Amino acid sequence: MTNGKQPNLRIPGPVPLPDDVLQLVGSQMINHRGPEYADMLDRMTANLRTVFMTTNDVYFITASGTGAMETAVVNTISPGDQVLSISVGVFGDRFREIAEAYGANVTNLDFELGHAADPEKVRETLKGMGDCKAVVFTHNESSTGVANPLEELCKVIREESDALILLDAVSSAGGMPIAVDAWGIDVVATASQKSWVAPPGIAMVTFSKRAWDAHAKSTTPKYYYDVQQYEDYLKIGQPPFTPCLPVMYAIENSLEAMVAEGIETVFARHHAIAEHTRDGARSLGLELLPEERFASNTVTAIKLPEDIDGKEFLARVRRDFNVILGGGQKSLTGKIFRIGHMGWVETAHIDEALEAAGRTLRVMGG
Amino acid sequence: MTNGKQPNLRIPGPVPLPDDVLQLVGSQMINHRGPEYADMLDRMTANLRTVFMTTNDVYFITASGTGAMETAVVNTISPGDQVLSISVGVFGDRFREIAEAYGANVTNLDFELGHAADPEKVRETLKGMGDCKAVVFTHNESSTGVANPLEELCKVIREESDALILLDAVSSAGGMPIAVDAWGIDVVATASQKSWVAPPGIAMVTFSKRAWDAHAKSTTPKYYYDVQQYEDYLKIGQPPFTPCLPVMYAIENSLEAMVAEGIETVFARHHAIAEHTRDGARSLGLELLPEERFASNTVTAIKLPEDIDGKEFLARVRRDFNVILGGGQKSLTGKIFRIGHMGWVETAHIDEALEAAGRTLRVMGG
Repeated sequence: MTNGKQPNLRIPGPVPLPDDVLQLVGSQMINHRGPEYADMLDRMTANLRTVFMTTNDVYFITASGTGAMETAVVNTISPGDQVLSISVGVFGDRFREIAEAYGANVTNLDFELGHAADPEKVRETLKGMGDCKAVVFTHNESSTGVANPLEELCKVIREESDALILLDAVSSAGGMPIAVDAWGIDVVATASQKSWVAPPGIAMVTFSKRAWDAHAKSTTPKYYYDVQQYEDYLKIGQPPFTPCLPVMYAIENSLEAMVAEGIETVFARHHAIAEHTRDGARSLGLELLPEERFASNTVTAIKLPEDIDGKEFLARVRRDFNVILGGGQKSLTGKIFRIGHMGWVETAHIDEALEAAGRTLRVMGG
Repeated sequence: MTNGKQPNLRIPGPVPLPDDVLQLVGSQMINHRGPEYADMLDRMTANLRTVFMTTNDVYFITASGTGAMETAVVNTISPGDQVLSISVGVFGDRFREIAEAYGANVTNLDFELGHAADPEKVRETLKGMGDCKAVVFTHNESSTGVANPLEELCKVIREESDALILLDAVSSAGGMPIAVDAWGIDVVATASQKSWVAPPGIAMVTFSKRAWDAHAKSTTPKYYYDVQQYEDYLKIGQPPFTPCLPVMYAIENSLEAMVAEGIETVFARHHAIAEHTRDGARSLGLELLPEERFASNTVTAIKLPEDIDGKEFLARVRRDFNVILGGGQKSLTGKIFRIGHMGWVETAHIDEALEAAGRTLRVMGG
């Protein structure tokens, strides 16, 4: 919708970017060991803390969101540590795989696709585990459009154990509230291409005092993702490794804008556009995949009528309406479609996407 | 020099970018799981092979250059493996640190700063080591402006051992010839912000059959940097993790341009501008740090007169001439300055930088 030729990209990230942000992304390179970078990093660090409602350390790392999740794991967990993985979908499974790849002894608590994690089941599992070093889970499962009840989950984990809380907030942070200090979250992992109105390329993490204590004891090998490197260089206003400048420029701008707008307003805006999307889907006679109370405020997953070929549906929406929707993943392939509404999104973007979906379904006889 | 306000950024990366590349960097996001991405990745893969003169696998990874070096190590080396590290400076030391972080048993062969690695010393060391799993070293040490004699080093390593050759070519690849197949290099690690006329954010690696054999036996834990993930997804024209699109757009463009220009011409162009820089430095009565025959074609390291305060020199050049030069690192701090000339660089950029250096030295009484 930025111009006649650009498709309406409504996948749950990378998010489309407005022209002024794209212009920033295309700014000239600067010396990442010079004073401008130090100034930028300083402001970004302060603003990121504001968004996460934390006094914890925060770091910017050149990587995809999976790199942020790996950073959470390799800095806190040692081989053989007991870890509880709570998964409600593809990204929860990925967090478990990362913990397993680094030698954690993982207990799995999986919930059916489209459902949220049940805090009482988490409580039972933790009671049965004895020692648990860390709990890894996804805040917002973008593969199913489910937002886990984060505050309740954190409360239960804190009540039942001393486990670190390692949170994949890749598709929620910046669009949904995450009160890092109040809820006691030790590491939050997120990435630039979601609610931050920036391209992919920068991973962001928060790191608590408890996480640092675990870091001191962690025997997991690490180098690029060792937070000690980022901490040491932060003191001199530098990155340890050459950072992805175009994405840093965009995040700097977004963080300033979010703090200026007020983070509560940013979250309310995401909630409002999500409600608009859910209402629109229901108006088309379609059903949401998750229960309403667990429906995500950054991505909506909508069930396709049973007789509709999901692959053809996505292809037609794209061909006939220049709208790119997300499909289903793994066992949900062909059964759902997804509409992203994080970061820069207007009701017109959503209405166009829903109209394209509705008209395509009618043509296909759905 | 792009316009009156932009400084002449002459550090050895990130390199400044011409306006048409910056415009590409600022292009709208696309679906990284859609057909445009698959097309782009396919062309980029073919062109990167051409530049590296190889039929080996090549991968694009969202990370800094250090991430490419870590990829080389974690995919091929297991804890306890004998590794020879050849270092001629800061980046050679970093490669050794990465190998050590992942449990390699490292034998060090270090050369004095400003000197290149001596192939005969490498031969002796390999003879004395017995079993050696891999040799890690830097092609072009940007901290000292030294280019190691790559072909000779590879020849000696191949003659004396079955060790894998893992090459840090972060600051050389794209600007200096690296005949991966002919010279038998198993993994080349490089990054976008150097000779590739692109911003930082994408690491690139080549991966040989022998490296894959080592991968099959490697017990080092890995996830984000596991080349198996990149290989599996390449088959369906996708990245395993959301890639840094703005930088991919720029590299795609640069690779097309390099192949169209002819890679021999690209390398000759880098040689010519390096000669121009070296001649210019000598005209100012200054001495190069490295011996002429090992002087890099992507960055020139120049000794400062002994009575000159190096920090003040850099600050004055910047303040008075809007030229940003590289300084010395570690024990060379304050003793040298460096001029980057890789990627997009014209003689006017170099002449301006040299004139700024010369006039500043005269003012400072050097």
